[in-house]
Parts: sequence; C-alpha cells; structure tokens
Amino acid sequence: LPAKLPNTGTTIFTVMSALAAEHGAVNLGQGFPDFGADPALLQAVTEAMAAGHNQYPPMTGVPALRLGVAAKLNALYGAAYDADRDITITAGGTQGLITALHACVGAGDEVLIIEPAYDSYDPAIRLAGAVPVGVPMTMDYRLDWAAVRAAITPRTRALVLNTPHNPSGRVATADDLRELERLAEQHDLFVVSDEVYEHMVFDGAPHQSVARYPALRERSFLVSSFGKNFHVTGWKVGFVAAPPTLSAAFRRLHQYTVFTVHTPTQHALAAYLADPAPWQALSAFYQAKRDAFRAALDGTPLKLLPCEGTYFQTVDYRAVSTHGALPELDFARWLTTEIGVAAIPLSVFYQQPQQRGHVRFCFAKRDDTLAEAAQRLARLG
Amino acid sequence: LPAKLPNTGTTIFTVMSALAAEHGAVNLGQGFPDFGADPALLQAVTEAMAAGHNQYPPMTGVPALRLGVAAKLNALYGAAYDADRDITITAGGTQGLITALHACVGAGDEVLIIEPAYDSYDPAIRLAGAVPVGVPMTMDYRLDWAAVRAAITPRTRALVLNTPHNPSGRVATADDLRELERLAEQHDLFVVSDEVYEHMVFDGAPHQSVARYPALRERSFLVSSFGKNFHVTGWKVGFVAAPPTLSAAFRRLHQYTVFTVHTPTQHALAAYLADPAPWQALSAFYQAKRDAFRAALDGTPLKLLPCEGTYFQTVDYRAVSTHGALPELDFARWLTTEIGVAAIPLSVFYQQPQQRGHVRFCFAKRDDTLAEAAQRLARLG
Ligand SMILES: CSCCC(=O)C(=O)O
Ligand SMILES: CSCCC(=O)C(=O)O
Repeated sequence: LPAKLPNTGTTIFTVMSALAAEHGAVNLGQGFPDFGADPALLQAVTEAMAAGHNQYPPMTGVPALRLGVAAKLNALYGAAYDADRDITITAGGTQGLITALHACVGAGDEVLIIEPAYDSYDPAIRLAGAVPVGVPMTMDYRLDWAAVRAAITPRTRALVLNTPHNPSGRVATADDLRELERLAEQHDLFVVSDEVYEHMVFDGAPHQSVARYPALRERSFLVSSFGKNFHVTGWKVGFVAAPPTLSAAFRRLHQYTVFTVHTPTQHALAAYLADPAPWQALSAFYQAKRDAFRAALDGTPLKLLPCEGTYFQTVDYRAVSTHGALPELDFARWLTTEIGVAAIPLSVFYQQPQQRGHVRFCFAKRDDTLAEAAQRLARLG
Repeated sequence: LPAKLPNTGTTIFTVMSALAAEHGAVNLGQGFPDFGADPALLQAVTEAMAAGHNQYPPMTGVPALRLGVAAKLNALYGAAYDADRDITITAGGTQGLITALHACVGAGDEVLIIEPAYDSYDPAIRLAGAVPVGVPMTMDYRLDWAAVRAAITPRTRALVLNTPHNPSGRVATADDLRELERLAEQHDLFVVSDEVYEHMVFDGAPHQSVARYPALRERSFLVSSFGKNFHVTGWKVGFVAAPPTLSAAFRRLHQYTVFTVHTPTQHALAAYLADPAPWQALSAFYQAKRDAFRAALDGTPLKLLPCEGTYFQTVDYRAVSTHGALPELDFARWLTTEIGVAAIPLSVFYQQPQQRGHVRFCFAKRDDTLAEAAQRLARLG
C-alpha cells in the first residue's frame, strides 16, 4: 500500500470517545451536543422524505438550500454570492475542507496552518500533495501575524483560517482579517476559511467571516456546517461558498468525491433556514453554557483560558497537584479513566506536539451533564 | 489553480438531467428510480431521529449497520468479514470508490479500468496520482482477458471491476472471476470492485462478487450502495468491505475525507436490512421492468443489446433512418430535445470516445413512465 498518511492513527476524537464510553466518563472530549435538536427540524426531514425527495438532488445541492445559504451570507456579511454559481452543499465541513484544499493546492505548494490546528487540516493538505506548514499562535492563542509573515515563502500558496478557533475558543478580530486580506493580496494566497462555529461568538463580538472583506472573499473558500449550528453533528451536511473560478474548481472535484449529499436533509434544512431565529439564538445559548461551566469550575485547580467563541473551553491543568506534571495526552487519559471526565489534549493539534498543560472541554452539553462533570472535576487536588 | 482534472466538465448525468428537465423529456438518462421507496424505510429514519440518533456515529459507521452488512456478505458469499474491522460505511458508492483507490494506489502506479467505464473511475484514479489505463471489453461487452493481460505492465497496481456492469448491463461469470483471481495473484494487483448493482442480476444468474473468491477477496475493496438497492439514490450511503490491512488504510483516509455518514439513515438501514425480503425481491422486480421495456421497444429501429443485470438497457440506434448516423452525444441530445426521451451516450465512458451508435436507457421507472417513453420512441423512423 502506498505510504499515504503513514504517521496517522485514529483521530483523537474517536480514541477519547471510546475511552470515555469504556470508563463511564462524562464525555466532554469530542465536540457534539448531548441534547436533542429542534423537533421541527426532524419533522422537516420526515416531510421531505414523504414528499418524495429521496433521489439524487442536483450535484451542487438542492436549489432552495443554496438560495437560503447565499441569502444569509449576503445579508450578514454584505457579500454577493450567487446561489447557483457560488454555493455548493457538502457532506459536512470535513469534506468541504479537503475538497477546497484539493481545488487550490497541489504538489510543491506550501499551505500555512495556524497551530493549534484542527486535526484534519494537515492530512488533507498532504493528501492534496502539498506541504502543511505550522505557524504558531501567540502564547495566549491569538493570531501572530509576524509569525505568519515569517513563514511565507515563494512556494506558499494558501492559508487555512479558523475562526472562531477550535480548540482555543479565540475569535479573530477585524484587524486580523484586514491583515490577512493584505497578506493574501501581497503574496497571492488562497484562503480556506473554516467557519463552522460562525454562530457561536460571545460577548457581543461579531463573527469575522472572510465574506465581509471583498478582496479576501475573492480568494477564499468559506467552509461551514449545519450540523454544528443546528445540534445535529451526525447529519454531515455543510456548504462551501466561493467565487466563480474557485467554485468551478471545487465542483469538478466534488462531483467525483461524493457527487452529492443526502437529499431529504437538504430540503429540511432549506425550510428550517427560512427562520433566522434558531441560529440567531445560538450565541446567547452557548454563552450561557460557557458562563455556567466556567463558574462551576471555580475553585478547582484548573485555570480557565479565555473563551470568546466555539463550544470549547480550554484549561491549564498544571496546578493540579497530583498529576499536573503529566504530558497532555496522559493527563487527558488519566482525567477520563480516574476522574471520569473526558477531554482533548491540545498537543494533538500540533505537528511538533507542544506540552503547555492545556486540555479542551466541550460544553455543548445539557446543564446536568456539565454539573456532573464539574462535580467530578471538583475532586482534583 | 492547480490543473487537476483539466479536461473534466460537468458529469454527463447532470448535463442530461438538466436537458431533460428543460425540454420536458422523459428522463431515462441518469440512473435513479422515479417511484417511491418503501414507507417502512422512511419511517425507520423518522424513528431513528426521534430516538436521538442525530450526533456523530462512530467514524467507521453505526455498529448495527456494519453487523448487518457483514452478516449479509458472509451468508451470501461464504466470506468471513468482521463487522468491526472490515466494514466501513461511506457517503455513497462514489466516495467508497475514490477513497478505496486513494488507499491502494499512488504516484507512478497504473490502474486498469474496463471500458466502457463508469465516469468517476478515471478522475478518481488521477486524483490519487495514478494513471488510468483503459482496457476495452469485447465488441459485445464481455470482459476481454486477453486485452487485460496485454495491458498489464510492471507498474500495474490495481484493476477496477464492475459487475453487474454499468453501462452495458453485462454481468461477469464465475470464469471471469477465477481468471481475475489468477491474474491478481500473479501480478500482485489490488481490485476495487464496484458492486452497486449486486441485487439486480437477471435470469437466475448469481452475482459474482469478489467476496466469493478467497484469494481475490484478500486483495479487494468491495464497494456497494444502499441507495441503489432501496430506491433512495439521494441518501448517499454505501459501504466498503475489505480485509484488515486494506480496511485500515481505507479508514485512515476516510476519517479525513468525510469522517462519517448521516447517523439516522444508518440506524434506519440497519433496522431495514434485518429483513432480507426487500433486496431478495429486487432482481425479479427489475427483471419484470426490463422485460416490459424491451417488449415495448419492439418494432422501433432501436436494436436491444443483452441486459443481464443493472437497471440499464443499452441500444444500438444506427438503424434510425433519420439520425442513426449521428455521433452518440449528438444522438442523445437529439433524442432528448426532439423525441422527448433522455438517454446517456456510451461514448462518455471511454478515454478515447468510441462511436458505436450505442446509448443507455435507465428502466428504474414506473411502468407508466416506461410506457410513455416507449410511445415517444415509437416515433423513431
Ligand atoms: C469530526 S469529530 C470531532 C468534532 C470536532 O469538531 C471536535 O471535537 O473538535
Ligand atoms: C451519480 S449520478 C449517476 C447515476 C448513475 O450511476 C448512472 O446513471 O450511471
């Protein structure tokens, strides 16, 4: 077998979810809600199936869903995406990402990823034949433009942006996006922008989509996911918005990668998207969970890092007297098996694993789940 | 943008479905049923959603569905697939194919495809960095082992098999599979076996799965699709069965390509698969449609080629006095726009388009649809 991804094992999310299940731990590792979706959304799938929407939709996606996505992006970000030409429905954010990368980079190209980086970026870039180049964030997980600038070479072809940022919970600022816009123009870079947490931004800050910045939008694949925003991570439906040339390249690959995506779910999402209330309520919903979870961890030796967006809370565990010196993966395992709360070590999000004593908790959980986790974490000495 | 798939336009299926819609033609082009799925299957999706199966399933697929698939394959073909280790649920047959090819071939490898070849094989192989080598079938669309043998070079690494065969409707014989088994062992080849029409084999012939032949099974990715077999082509759920080493390589790529697949549909399919009656009835169901459609075309100048499996009927149109001399794509367009019946030209299934005067009709349609199509085709002079 060809040595593709030779150093790749099973994703950390699968590993930690399995360990959590095995040990009866509260699973705050893999990012998914443990509460139900809106019954109206489920009902819409049932109705779409009953209406006979069970055969191939158009390759690019159900027209009504593409119209809904374009209308939302254009209204929110002052963009002018065309539903037919610029929006493609994908089999989740992961497929949007890998196909976008394949569309814009190839052999010999370098692609900058901001570390800590979501675990699929590196293999996706390598599978496209390009070289992933890790660029560190600052020590407090902000975008470090001096480091980005220093990493650019004549072979740099693209950058993967992720805001709100998984795993750190940071969100990019308008200054960040303007800086990226300048750099991208100056060095003729494509941007693959992972915005799957677009509707989870806290304390009144706006989501800084690449779609807000015209020169950036013209060079960007905007990737998002319905699963994260509507509490149905298992549905695996997302979208990619990109200008005409990039969308055409994307679709050429998309049609041979998955061809198209679960039809009844697309119809249901199209109907559901017509009402902006669900996604408009999402930031407040998760901000309340963030605040409750942070308050509940008060008094433990876990130091809370800032959480400006996403449904992840990163903590520094080095003050845990008994096990604070463990490497992150070992600490996460110990926390899962001995304390009964699963977490994700940030070390797995680096090409050269850092050991900063940081793990990530997912707070997309019922209030009683978070309370139970906090109670267990209160045992930490 | 990197020149990936530079010669690739929109798939013929999208093109012809759009043309059919525009001209009000009966769409016998793209392969999909125009009748409804079993309400019990739709109900099972509704129940799975209501039961809360809406978050990420395991990366490899819902265990009950993998168990059902392994049990079926093992019972039908005397195989010994392990549900946990050897079965992976995919986002449809197309994703199963492209990921299997990426798992077993890379730069410098040659991959044999049997022409006419389903349109995603060639780009999927090229995207994996390998070179697709077209091997012609015999003039009456049988596997031509002399031609296969002649095409093998020291760089040949894999062969894509497809039985029942789209577009020709031929099915491979036991002799074919034994010959392939010998060749694969002799030349150390992997086999990617597209068996999405496994339950549409006519006149009492058995489906010749690679899973029946132990030495072949050990080198094969068996790709199939639930959408084709349960009349829900838009659901985009399939599976890949492969021995442990191949499955491990497949999953490494799968987890970064789509990660996983629509959860409620997987649960529904698992429940539905428990009853063998639906797929056991499928061959007889489609054989009756084949027979009716063939009878209805009697008296037209279209010459019916043998149809041993799939839901496709290929015809030779050269005896059509007015337009029988047209190249296949032009004839298919003319048939769509002027006669009102969409078909797929076989020329698009070749690297070097052949012009044999053959187009393909899909007969996975209601009886009244097929009757209407036949009535229109009766106008051919
Ligand atoms: C695709 S499984 C991982 C879910 C996720 O995005 C995360 O936990 O970071
Ligand atoms: C993926 S759309 C094409 C459907 C099909 O398999 C065919 O028509 O051959």
